[in-house]
Amino acid sequence: MTRVTTMVIAALVLAGSGSLAKAQETPAEAQNKQIVLEFYEKALNGKNPEAAASYFGSHYTQHNPLVADGAEGFRKFVEFLRQKYPEAHSEAKRVFADGDYVIIHSHAVQEPGTKGAAIIDIFRLENKKIVEHWDVIQPLPETASNSNGMF
Amino acid sequence: MTRVTTMVIAALVLAGSGSLAKAQETPAEAQNKQIVLEFYEKALNGKNPEAAASYFGSHYTQHNPLVADGAEGFRKFVEFLRQKYPEAHSEAKRVFADGDYVIIHSHAVQEPGTKGAAIIDIFRLENKKIVEHWDVIQPLPETASNSNGMF
Repeated sequence: MTRVTTMVIAALVLAGSGSLAKAQETPAEAQNKQIVLEFYEKALNGKNPEAAASYFGSHYTQHNPLVADGAEGFRKFVEFLRQKYPEAHSEAKRVFADGDYVIIHSHAVQEPGTKGAAIIDIFRLENKKIVEHWDVIQPLPETASNSNGMF
Repeated sequence: MTRVTTMVIAALVLAGSGSLAKAQETPAEAQNKQIVLEFYEKALNGKNPEAAASYFGSHYTQHNPLVADGAEGFRKFVEFLRQKYPEAHSEAKRVFADGDYVIIHSHAVQEPGTKGAAIIDIFRLENKKIVEHWDVIQPLPETASNSNGMF
């Protein structure tokens, strides 16, 4: 991992989820955040399927309906991203942890100059390995009924 | 609140986010989950804007691009729901808390018999009042690349 990536992850963990969250979360929850954010950077921005795969447990249950199940399904998704959208970038805006779960709220842009999408991912871990994933994805709108933005 | 609603909320809080989460979360986080789930039931299933409004703080920042800002924007949204989709039902599948934030992963069906949408909501609280909301919404697909479902 590059120093920049490490700094980005450290900043996200610190900025994570409000000032109270840091004091209230357990060391295990802080570690889970760190693990998932490293995975997230390597998979979605580094587009490195081998590095990402090292974060999976003996099974990986995929709930994103566009991605095949398991580690192999995820590898194919990262390959697709690397080939079709080599400049795709995901920016984590908020990260939360609750027990074995880590939740990331992010802005994903497949092609530079496009508005991209808001995504919330939920990851479940077992023994510090990622074993299950859900997400919800919504394109950013052209106009909105309020001026607060989706983030 | 009816007994059934209370039981649903209690079951959700207990089922919430994995066995470890209950042991690891603080009393404040458990209370925040309870507050947001009560609000969620009263607003989205009860469609009672006045009851829902009592959960807001002195401000309420709305990030859903289809809803106007503030408590008044939310009131109009609940009125719209009550009039246009009186049978709309939201079922919380998972609930998480991290400090002042509560996250709900749910299945929302506006009209019975339709597939509905997966939604993840993020609520921020200040002093036990809801002051900010983000969400991401995705219609359930007709077909999927895996057999795990979106929940």
